[in-house]
Amino acid sequence: MTGTPDLLAEDLHGAARDPALGAIGFLNEVMSRYPEAISFAPGAPHPEFMRDIDTRALTDRFVDHLVAERGFTPDAAQRALYEYGPAQGLINDLVAEALGTDQGIRADPREIVITVGAQEALLLALRSLYPRSGGDDLFAIADPCYAGITGAARLLDIPVVPLREGESGLDLDHLAARCREAREQGRRIRACYVAPDFSNPGGARMPLAARHALLDLAEREDLLLVEDNAYGFTAPEDDGLPCLKALDRHRRVVHVGTFAKVGFPGARVGYAVADQRVQNGAEQRTLAEELAVLKTMTTVNTPPLAQAVIGGLLLEHGRSLTALGRPKAQRYRRNLDHLLEALDKHLGDDLPPGITVQRPAGGFFVRIDLPVPADLALLEVSAAEHGVLWTPMSQFSLTDRCDRQLRLSCSYLDPDQIEQGVKRLAAFLREEAVA
Amino acid sequence: MTGTPDLLAEDLHGAARDPALGAIGFLNEVMSRYPEAISFAPGAPHPEFMRDIDTRALTDRFVDHLVAERGFTPDAAQRALYEYGPAQGLINDLVAEALGTDQGIRADPREIVITVGAQEALLLALRSLYPRSGGDDLFAIADPCYAGITGAARLLDIPVVPLREGESGLDLDHLAARCREAREQGRRIRACYVAPDFSNPGGARMPLAARHALLDLAEREDLLLVEDNAYGFTAPEDDGLPCLKALDRHRRVVHVGTFAKVGFPGARVGYAVADQRVQNGAEQRTLAEELAVLKTMTTVNTPPLAQAVIGGLLLEHGRSLTALGRPKAQRYRRNLDHLLEALDKHLGDDLPPGITVQRPAGGFFVRIDLPVPADLALLEVSAAEHGVLWTPMSQFSLTDRCDRQLRLSCSYLDPDQIEQGVKRLAAFLREEAVA
Repeated sequence: MTGTPDLLAEDLHGAARDPALGAIGFLNEVMSRYPEAISFAPGAPHPEFMRDIDTRALTDRFVDHLVAERGFTPDAAQRALYEYGPAQGLINDLVAEALGTDQGIRADPREIVITVGAQEALLLALRSLYPRSGGDDLFAIADPCYAGITGAARLLDIPVVPLREGESGLDLDHLAARCREAREQGRRIRACYVAPDFSNPGGARMPLAARHALLDLAEREDLLLVEDNAYGFTAPEDDGLPCLKALDRHRRVVHVGTFAKVGFPGARVGYAVADQRVQNGAEQRTLAEELAVLKTMTTVNTPPLAQAVIGGLLLEHGRSLTALGRPKAQRYRRNLDHLLEALDKHLGDDLPPGITVQRPAGGFFVRIDLPVPADLALLEVSAAEHGVLWTPMSQFSLTDRCDRQLRLSCSYLDPDQIEQGVKRLAAFLREEAVA
Repeated sequence: MTGTPDLLAEDLHGAARDPALGAIGFLNEVMSRYPEAISFAPGAPHPEFMRDIDTRALTDRFVDHLVAERGFTPDAAQRALYEYGPAQGLINDLVAEALGTDQGIRADPREIVITVGAQEALLLALRSLYPRSGGDDLFAIADPCYAGITGAARLLDIPVVPLREGESGLDLDHLAARCREAREQGRRIRACYVAPDFSNPGGARMPLAARHALLDLAEREDLLLVEDNAYGFTAPEDDGLPCLKALDRHRRVVHVGTFAKVGFPGARVGYAVADQRVQNGAEQRTLAEELAVLKTMTTVNTPPLAQAVIGGLLLEHGRSLTALGRPKAQRYRRNLDHLLEALDKHLGDDLPPGITVQRPAGGFFVRIDLPVPADLALLEVSAAEHGVLWTPMSQFSLTDRCDRQLRLSCSYLDPDQIEQGVKRLAAFLREEAVA
């Protein structure tokens, strides 16, 4: 496309020109140039779960539920699929029940808002909590961090404070120090984004004591915690930890979830549990109700067609997120085991100097630390010479902290691809990742 | 809900406390208190169109299209329903074709972004065009105006300039004067929202000459026009006017459309045609591509399940929005005729002094001017004493210009309800709307 431009990029909102987006573009472009390469880059769900979803049967099941348990007439239940629906959502009761059963989160349907994926839930929560765009209030995030949350903050011009993250998650001392610093400057950290279970991309998991300590810190520093629970379902079944919201005695946590992984991404159904009481003159309402009002200005309501399919999935799995996610969790744990075993086998005994491999207990991602920059130039070499792709961790970072790290994702590959890919990766690391 | 609050409304984003929202809440509450009242308030589609939508057959039809014309393998086409999809959309080709056939809009799929309803399209367009929240650039809108656009502007803290609207739409002299005023203050009106066909709630329609004049004004004043075309399909078939985008020789128009009326609202599928060339360093891309990047930060992508059903509807109707919307347009025109005839019959010969009735040629809405304030107190009287409901026009207004106007909607009623409702309305107007 050439010719006289109508608009200059610098006159448009800068979120569309975030450097990370350029890196994603480059990554996609490398993938398209090396179609034979095995790619550990995309964190997409496994394709086997993207088939044989009987949306008609699931929808019918949900319609029956509306009639049997929610007092809809058969005609009104059918129409609910096609009409505008309540901004706050149509499946809040089922989500509330599942969160209670599976995760020990006691939430009333009024304390939940159903959103177009977790992304919209994050956007709405930030919009509500940061009323003045470009204002003084700061938003703390782990660094590296999921691009969706930095993107949402960027879109709303909310200033972000990157925090260190270790194997046991967010560095709480760092968070406390940054809270103090902000106060000294007459500002405050209003909220902190945290993914306690197998964070994307860092793969960190917070131990139970750290979860309690974070909640205490939030209470002490008057922070709200925006918890993202996308990968919690991949924890080993005998080693589950309560999410922050289940431990939250002071309503400090806005809990964000998604059906993209336990269900399927194309539904674009997520939710926020926001039970905070908002005082509005003489009246109180929940923060979820507040977010639902804002939602009328972003997407009006989440497509009832999509909510019905997700509602049907919950009903079909005993109203349990755990049951719904179990076959997927098993597949992802197997894949992660394969990946870690293959790394042991092909790299383990003579790990090149300066290379370390993280060993997460769940999630989609494994981090490898290199003695050299894991940049786009190195990725190009990896693709061209060794036929294997990965994601530079720097793509998820606002600092230079992750410049020598790469992220491997194993979610959408099969065991033989993982084995073959790690073989190539090992050769690449031995030959190219040398200080 | 009572008890110690966790948050104060004044510390959260004010968009959730817009006065218009309070009025909507009151209106809903009145409707629930008077369930026997006939309501001319909601602008919802007629329920007869919310039945017997065979989503399975429509989805299958779209999957076949992906295979036959888009080069998908059968497996990839199935998976496209359930996976994340392209942020820019999955049905852009069909929408482009339909807009070309039906509305004379020549758009490439790259110049279109598919969104979660028209609402997200408006939000993304505003976000891109107003890079500095609370900045100096102004956004002009007709007053009264569709609440979705004022809501989106409010959510992004974009200052709004209300413009007068007459029977022939936006007052162009007023717009030119406000552009001058803004310039004199060192500011500018960056964009103007306009619904040229049967605007909601005003019911105005711009004649062809006014459309050309508006485009000329936009070119002269360096404005972008955000065109909302939700009601254009209701124009009489022998009296269609080209939309602004079809007349747009200088890429001044971002054209926003929705399938909520020609299809069904629960799909939550809309689109923006944004063919503007954006210069970004050495590269050019379309504004639609720019909006798609921002969309990764709001909803990631529009649910493929919903896009597939809409794609199927287009395929089933010869890839024509006009064909898809025809039975609906006929129903709405009949309803409007019924409404206007009933108003003539029950009010016509002895219209109380100071009352005038607008006579739009299409759309969902009729405006009535009263000699007294059409406020919530009068609405309460109308409901309690006369069993008929309507919407105070002031709910859609940022000024006091509409305080003595009410809006009647006829879209979701049946002829006998319209007849009966107008009878009640006539009695109400004669008895209560007296200066």
